[in-house]
Amino acid sequence: MIRDRVRALLTEVASGTVPVDHALAQLAAEPIEVLGHSTVDHHRAVRQGYPEVVYGEGKTSDQVVEVCASIAARAGRFLVTRSTLEQRTAVLARFPEARENAIARTVRLGGLVVSGSDTTRRVLVVTAGTSDLPVAEEAVETLAAMDIAADRLTDVGVAGIHRLLSRTDALMAAAAVIVVAGMDGALPSVVGGLVRGPVIAVPTSVGYGASFGGLAALLTMLNSCAAGVVVCNIDNGLGAAMAAARALSA
Amino acid sequence: MIRDRVRALLTEVASGTVPVDHALAQLAAEPIEVLGHSTVDHHRAVRQGYPEVVYGEGKTSDQVVEVCASIAARAGRFLVTRSTLEQRTAVLARFPEARENAIARTVRLGGLVVSGSDTTRRVLVVTAGTSDLPVAEEAVETLAAMDIAADRLTDVGVAGIHRLLSRTDALMAAAAVIVVAGMDGALPSVVGGLVRGPVIAVPTSVGYGASFGGLAALLTMLNSCAAGVVVCNIDNGLGAAMAAARALSA
Amino acid sequence: MIRDRVRALLTEVASGTVPVDHALAQLAAEPIEVLGHSTVDHHRAVRQGYPEVVYGEGKTSDQVVEVCASIAARAGRFLVTRSTLEQRTAVLARFPEARENAIARTVRLGGLVVSGSDTTRRVLVVTAGTSDLPVAEEAVETLAAMDIAADRLTDVGVAGIHRLLSRTDALMAAAAVIVVAGMDGALPSVVGGLVRGPVIAVPTSVGYGASFGGLAALLTMLNSCAAGVVVCNIDNGLGAAMAAARALSA
Amino acid sequence: MIRDRVRALLTEVASGTVPVDHALAQLAAEPIEVLGHSTVDHHRAVRQGYPEVVYGEGKTSDQVVEVCASIAARAGRFLVTRSTLEQRTAVLARFPEARENAIARTVRLGGLVVSGSDTTRRVLVVTAGTSDLPVAEEAVETLAAMDIAADRLTDVGVAGIHRLLSRTDALMAAAAVIVVAGMDGALPSVVGGLVRGPVIAVPTSVGYGASFGGLAALLTMLNSCAAGVVVCNIDNGLGAAMAAARALSA
Amino acid sequence: MIRDRVRALLTEVASGTVPVDHALAQLAAEPIEVLGHSTVDHHRAVRQGYPEVVYGEGKTSDQVVEVCASIAARAGRFLVTRSTLEQRTAVLARFPEARENAIARTVRLGGLVVSGSDTTRRVLVVTAGTSDLPVAEEAVETLAAMDIAADRLTDVGVAGIHRLLSRTDALMAAAAVIVVAGMDGALPSVVGGLVRGPVIAVPTSVGYGASFGGLAALLTMLNSCAAGVVVCNIDNGLGAAMAAARALSA
Amino acid sequence: MIRDRVRALLTEVASGTVPVDHALAQLAAEPIEVLGHSTVDHHRAVRQGYPEVVYGEGKTSDQVVEVCASIAARAGRFLVTRSTLEQRTAVLARFPEARENAIARTVRLGGLVVSGSDTTRRVLVVTAGTSDLPVAEEAVETLAAMDIAADRLTDVGVAGIHRLLSRTDALMAAAAVIVVAGMDGALPSVVGGLVRGPVIAVPTSVGYGASFGGLAALLTMLNSCAAGVVVCNIDNGLGAAMAAARALSA
Amino acid sequence: MIRDRVRALLTEVASGTVPVDHALAQLAAEPIEVLGHSTVDHHRAVRQGYPEVVYGEGKTSDQVVEVCASIAARAGRFLVTRSTLEQRTAVLARFPEARENAIARTVRLGGLVVSGSDTTRRVLVVTAGTSDLPVAEEAVETLAAMDIAADRLTDVGVAGIHRLLSRTDALMAAAAVIVVAGMDGALPSVVGGLVRGPVIAVPTSVGYGASFGGLAALLTMLNSCAAGVVVCNIDNGLGAAMAAARALSA
Amino acid sequence: MIRDRVRALLTEVASGTVPVDHALAQLAAEPIEVLGHSTVDHHRAVRQGYPEVVYGEGKTSDQVVEVCASIAARAGRFLVTRSTLEQRTAVLARFPEARENAIARTVRLGGLVVSGSDTTRRVLVVTAGTSDLPVAEEAVETLAAMDIAADRLTDVGVAGIHRLLSRTDALMAAAAVIVVAGMDGALPSVVGGLVRGPVIAVPTSVGYGASFGGLAALLTMLNSCAAGVVVCNIDNGLGAAMAAARALSA
Repeated sequence: MIRDRVRALLTEVASGTVPVDHALAQLAAEPIEVLGHSTVDHHRAVRQGYPEVVYGEGKTSDQVVEVCASIAARAGRFLVTRSTLEQRTAVLARFPEARENAIARTVRLGGLVVSGSDTTRRVLVVTAGTSDLPVAEEAVETLAAMDIAADRLTDVGVAGIHRLLSRTDALMAAAAVIVVAGMDGALPSVVGGLVRGPVIAVPTSVGYGASFGGLAALLTMLNSCAAGVVVCNIDNGLGAAMAAARALSA
Repeated sequence: MIRDRVRALLTEVASGTVPVDHALAQLAAEPIEVLGHSTVDHHRAVRQGYPEVVYGEGKTSDQVVEVCASIAARAGRFLVTRSTLEQRTAVLARFPEARENAIARTVRLGGLVVSGSDTTRRVLVVTAGTSDLPVAEEAVETLAAMDIAADRLTDVGVAGIHRLLSRTDALMAAAAVIVVAGMDGALPSVVGGLVRGPVIAVPTSVGYGASFGGLAALLTMLNSCAAGVVVCNIDNGLGAAMAAARALSA
Repeated sequence: MIRDRVRALLTEVASGTVPVDHALAQLAAEPIEVLGHSTVDHHRAVRQGYPEVVYGEGKTSDQVVEVCASIAARAGRFLVTRSTLEQRTAVLARFPEARENAIARTVRLGGLVVSGSDTTRRVLVVTAGTSDLPVAEEAVETLAAMDIAADRLTDVGVAGIHRLLSRTDALMAAAAVIVVAGMDGALPSVVGGLVRGPVIAVPTSVGYGASFGGLAALLTMLNSCAAGVVVCNIDNGLGAAMAAARALSA
Repeated sequence: MIRDRVRALLTEVASGTVPVDHALAQLAAEPIEVLGHSTVDHHRAVRQGYPEVVYGEGKTSDQVVEVCASIAARAGRFLVTRSTLEQRTAVLARFPEARENAIARTVRLGGLVVSGSDTTRRVLVVTAGTSDLPVAEEAVETLAAMDIAADRLTDVGVAGIHRLLSRTDALMAAAAVIVVAGMDGALPSVVGGLVRGPVIAVPTSVGYGASFGGLAALLTMLNSCAAGVVVCNIDNGLGAAMAAARALSA
Repeated sequence: MIRDRVRALLTEVASGTVPVDHALAQLAAEPIEVLGHSTVDHHRAVRQGYPEVVYGEGKTSDQVVEVCASIAARAGRFLVTRSTLEQRTAVLARFPEARENAIARTVRLGGLVVSGSDTTRRVLVVTAGTSDLPVAEEAVETLAAMDIAADRLTDVGVAGIHRLLSRTDALMAAAAVIVVAGMDGALPSVVGGLVRGPVIAVPTSVGYGASFGGLAALLTMLNSCAAGVVVCNIDNGLGAAMAAARALSA
Repeated sequence: MIRDRVRALLTEVASGTVPVDHALAQLAAEPIEVLGHSTVDHHRAVRQGYPEVVYGEGKTSDQVVEVCASIAARAGRFLVTRSTLEQRTAVLARFPEARENAIARTVRLGGLVVSGSDTTRRVLVVTAGTSDLPVAEEAVETLAAMDIAADRLTDVGVAGIHRLLSRTDALMAAAAVIVVAGMDGALPSVVGGLVRGPVIAVPTSVGYGASFGGLAALLTMLNSCAAGVVVCNIDNGLGAAMAAARALSA
Repeated sequence: MIRDRVRALLTEVASGTVPVDHALAQLAAEPIEVLGHSTVDHHRAVRQGYPEVVYGEGKTSDQVVEVCASIAARAGRFLVTRSTLEQRTAVLARFPEARENAIARTVRLGGLVVSGSDTTRRVLVVTAGTSDLPVAEEAVETLAAMDIAADRLTDVGVAGIHRLLSRTDALMAAAAVIVVAGMDGALPSVVGGLVRGPVIAVPTSVGYGASFGGLAALLTMLNSCAAGVVVCNIDNGLGAAMAAARALSA
Repeated sequence: MIRDRVRALLTEVASGTVPVDHALAQLAAEPIEVLGHSTVDHHRAVRQGYPEVVYGEGKTSDQVVEVCASIAARAGRFLVTRSTLEQRTAVLARFPEARENAIARTVRLGGLVVSGSDTTRRVLVVTAGTSDLPVAEEAVETLAAMDIAADRLTDVGVAGIHRLLSRTDALMAAAAVIVVAGMDGALPSVVGGLVRGPVIAVPTSVGYGASFGGLAALLTMLNSCAAGVVVCNIDNGLGAAMAAARALSA
């Protein structure tokens, strides 16, 4: 593509239509302008399959609503994460058809009804403890926002290993598994040994003392003895869902 | 494969050809491990799609050859990683048809000829610098060992961003992208913004001073501003390949 | 046990009572279902000797009371840790016979009256400073909840070593010693050199500056020059009590 | 200079004008007094080209106003950073002609009108995301306070690399570039590869989980694969501006 | 034993067989150290139940043999850890009846024959991978040196969870369990959920990349979701055995 | 001393006055009771030259007053550190003659009037910036409480090195120098090169970003290129004063 | 230079001397990389003002010579860093006119004679101790390779502050100052307070114990109390020189 | 000493014996450095009470001998630390009267005979274990080099607390105590509680696993519960001795 444009330019130089110095300037800028366009959000929507997610933290309710309206106008949908109750209330006032998830701290317009969907390829979101739920729910909501159905398998930490093993069927049936765990972060290693598909591990900051805000679980997961388990940032339910979406598009 | 063998055995039991106790003994030797025995490798081969990988570090050449022979007898293939030249020479003496990759420090029996394969779904292994090559090659060899074709895109670090951008077509064509980078570990963020499919980031211990053995690149990747990029352990080309294989099976 | 069940299954296959495909499905699920059961709490109560402890942090008072009621209905007892005054008040309103310990931030139903018990095998909970008391009291309450009598030896930090040495008799008489210390975390090393029985060290986040939230004390204890001293997570009085209970059941 | 004064002193000793002990005392104090002067702020104003910056954090509004008045009396200008709304309001009450920047949390007397200036050598302040703005604005205000014109290029993080590349002209036209980025901190590496002049990287504490308060971005920048990129402290917009001013004075 | 010797001495004093000053001199040489002298080893033997262990690292073979002879003369037994082949050969030349364990890097005089003992209370030493064996063997040898029988359960890492579960009976039968694991260090959490007795976790430096020399496994174990699991220093098989001995003496 | 008591005991055994078993019990307890006494505070007051300092943090005002009264009754003086305004007000209500220092967050009974004292051996407390003052004042007050006169030299950080050098005389005249610095913590190295006496470095948590709560200054000071500079915990003005007092008693 | 070549080419196209397709092929081989190809080094030479530096570590002598020859053919100059004696000997055998610096571990073709140059704008490279020399020399050689004159000021650490102060004139005369320091890393703060121009701090791994491989010095420099001091990676003399070159081009 | 020489010189100038310019040249060569020259060592000798210590690491034997000769010529004494056997042999060949200490890795000319001195003010160097001896001996030798007598108290770690307590008299008699400890680093806290004078803690890198090269002991000591204990860098016996010398000069 670029090669053709350069050839065209050179032809114009050869024919005298374009002066040398003008061509020189064009060439210097070429690798940029040909692909580049300044409208950032559109670009992401096209490339990544979903419009920019609205990160609520540090924004006023008005700012959140404004950004949501802007995205909705263009994409017909939006997702707000890490939002406060006040932010969500403001969004719902403007978009009454939006769906709120208080545990996930999300509100979104469009996407699947989480539990009512009936698709064949589903993501399973597994949590070690109940305190890991907010991160898991953020993943579930993000998946739903991207029209991907998700199921939950909660409170199956490895200290009671039979809880997990009794659900091996659910694990094996999933197209991808997101494993959310704090404290020792040991669950993804066990899950990784049970299933063959993608296993996306999300450390949470759940724990106290030497968990160091999720560092312990993060290191555990990076060192998983189950090969091919991959890791997201601490508490990053959004990123895990995005990673699952990437895997499903492989 | 194994499932078929068990079904065959059960059929023989049903038909009276094989006595119950004999079948019980057979099952005990099967990789399903229903009856609790210690033969680990069989089980993993069934669940994870590839027999146990032989980790060369800390083993004698004789030990490596012995384990390879044991796995080859059962699975018809093997993969040795982190091997020394001496270990590889010993393996090749026993298995002349095995393939050695000195940069990757691997030797394997079976799997694809790396560059000659022509399959539609291919993994692209991208490296930031030439020093990241050993890790990238380990990934390529592991993929080939699992019959997955891989291409390489090398030395396209972000300090010369046009090198990467000029190959956007290759990035977009890949079923999954493994990005190997040391030093600042910035490459996966750029790649993650360019492609929609799975992006698996592998930090390497390449760098000096405050790279702290790959910690800098690891943290960079975990904090990638491109959503859905997932991370493996430092220098873990094997794990990245396994993760790509998991994604392709999603 | 499992072997017998598989043999029985095979016998049924041989006799034609069970079809091959049905047996195949059974075998695939075997290692899980034989041991697995989904009622999580029961399992823990049976295995670990005490029902699930209720962790107060992040729960509403209503949630805490509800969980307590559920556990009490089944086990006749409960223990709530890391609770707020409001949570404890709510629990006491519902279970007037429950015992509150404001320093330990616990409330529990059942178990020993802490100081009034008179059993031969007792745990000694030692603290370096008065600021370590909340962690120590959490340990004492947890022990009492498990019907294990405990004594306290407080404010015997190593900077005034004679305070500790003057109580060597108490140390030696204990069936197990829990040592709670922040700052330099040096106390367990001295105690470990004085007694022969189990010494369980608990670092606390007490300290300032380079204590780094208990990290300094944690590292001290892990490197104790008194062999056989073991370590719990920072501020983990509950875990230390559980460890003592495990030791007493050895 | 000092040599001359010592020679003069020795000449006085030789001529008997100065007694030996007096000369001895003079010599002992020489290397200090010759250069030393106790008025701290003056010294800095002379050496560093700008009077002492007033750091608002931890000061009362009265203290801030008092220091501002003292500096203004001497230098005719001042800059307050990390200020609260209350502090800025107090300063503006006293100095109505001062300029406030709420995002930058600064208020200053004197210096350029940020966007209205038209000088040939300008600094470009680039940010990866909108959350990095406060740090970038602190840099812009500090530059303006030192009479250096600055332009902004915001929200051009590497996950959407074309946003940055489409502005290569602006990057190349700048006399120096300050790059402000949190999360993965990857932006300075790309910028450093595009421009030849000074690139000053400022990590921000923007991010969550394993960003560890900006540590991830800091390490990324220190390990930049673009040679000659230099790094400031986390969130240190003031320092970056000072560094740019130093570069412009090279 | 020593207590009996002191009693005997006192009886002789009471009976007038031994004069006061002679008894005083004897006591001064006794391990009780009532009279303050520097002979360290005796004291530890009395208090801790085993004479001082000889740490081989950094000692010459001659030094090791000399210390062994000194301890053997007094206690009739010794244990050398972290020894080189050369050190062990030297010890065996002097004490042909000593037992060497090359994997454990130990040599000892006295204690149990490891696998041949038949006692009712036994410690089970569990390892996640074969690379953890040296640490596990150090624990086994230390236990044997203290006359405590131990069994091994090797290579039962959580990525193949059925390997472990198929041996639940062995886990439950043990008086105490030592769990040795590197990489993700997840095994103790699973074991802790399966057994009620003491579970002593030992992180190993096995792993690469972000295992950071065992730090990852250490943090995992400290944050174990199985309550009451306690932790030793990295690679500290000796300490784990000592802790098990303490638990058995509770 | 102990030897004599044992001899006396043995003599009583020899004479039949004390039975063997009674003597045995005495001997076992000997090394402890001879030195041990349980009254903690007295011991410290005797050994360390000052009664226990009252640490205000986490105590109620009533508790603080009560402890102060207890110590005052015995020692005639007290020192409260890290106190709130409310705590100090309560102490002053009870002890109107006590002296409050709001910056130091201390209140004390007895000791020197800080600036009015005229002793020959004085400690100089040097600070790098004005934000380091609270820590410096805590040191000054603690010294005064121990009847040691102190002078202050403030805001002489190394970025304006002549401020410090112009006061070399004060530095050299001091019996000991306490250097309080945050941020880069560079000041003690310069001071350590200028004076010959004790230099006690105190890192403060002043700074932002990569100061990591004083860790940067702490490491700087531990690595000081001026030999013999010693370091206290972060923000530990109390400890620095105690160290100076120890040095003055050398 | 390259720009001129492209202009010349375009002129030939305009004049018809060179056909379009031939020009297209030429451009594809040009360093501007308009047409997307992989020849990395050319591009960097244009943008960054110097061809790719050859990093010796991990390369064979043959590889180093080959790369040098390739770069020399194109650019007429090269610089090899982190080289071994063997590598340098091989380079000198091929390029007898190259200059070796054994302390810097560099060899280069072209550039200035370090100390003989007489230019008005010079960089001053300051070191705290003699152990910092290799890093300083790497900076000096890199500067010389880029035709920038440099002077050295060595062994002027802050523990003997007068050594530095006696050379204030040299500091002030420099166009930019590179400050190389290990251990406490305090020197850049003092220098930063003395000069107004660019101060580039380079931490070195010199030191022991708690210097943690240069981390202490790195943190010191990042927290410098002299505003506008910027920091490079540990031991990165090359990067510091590049940064100085960037500043001089501002 | 030097002061006297300057006074003598000035007197000669006053008397006309020495011309002004000659005196000026003399002064320029004097350690006071009034006239700004680079001869570092002289200055330190005057200020710090001992000539520059020769750090052996990284120097050739010839370099060490040369530096020793230079210092000896001026000061009549020298101290070499961190030296190899080869370096010490070379020094002894040149200075047969020098004293070598192989454990301390030092060789020195001048100073006290370590154990034979009989002075009233003595430093006590205490070690926790025998592995800490090299650091302790370095301290002892450095003290002796500075004419300060030192005694040793070895192997009195806190796990056998009575070893230490039986020597309380020695502790109390010392003018200053240096406490050298690795592993848990707990010993200084106990010593700090027993003595009133200066306690200088030196962490050593002795230990394994989570001692992290002495970091554990370092943090322990910084957080010592015995107020006024100060800390040196890891393994820094030299610095501890210097600190003791500073304290003795208070």
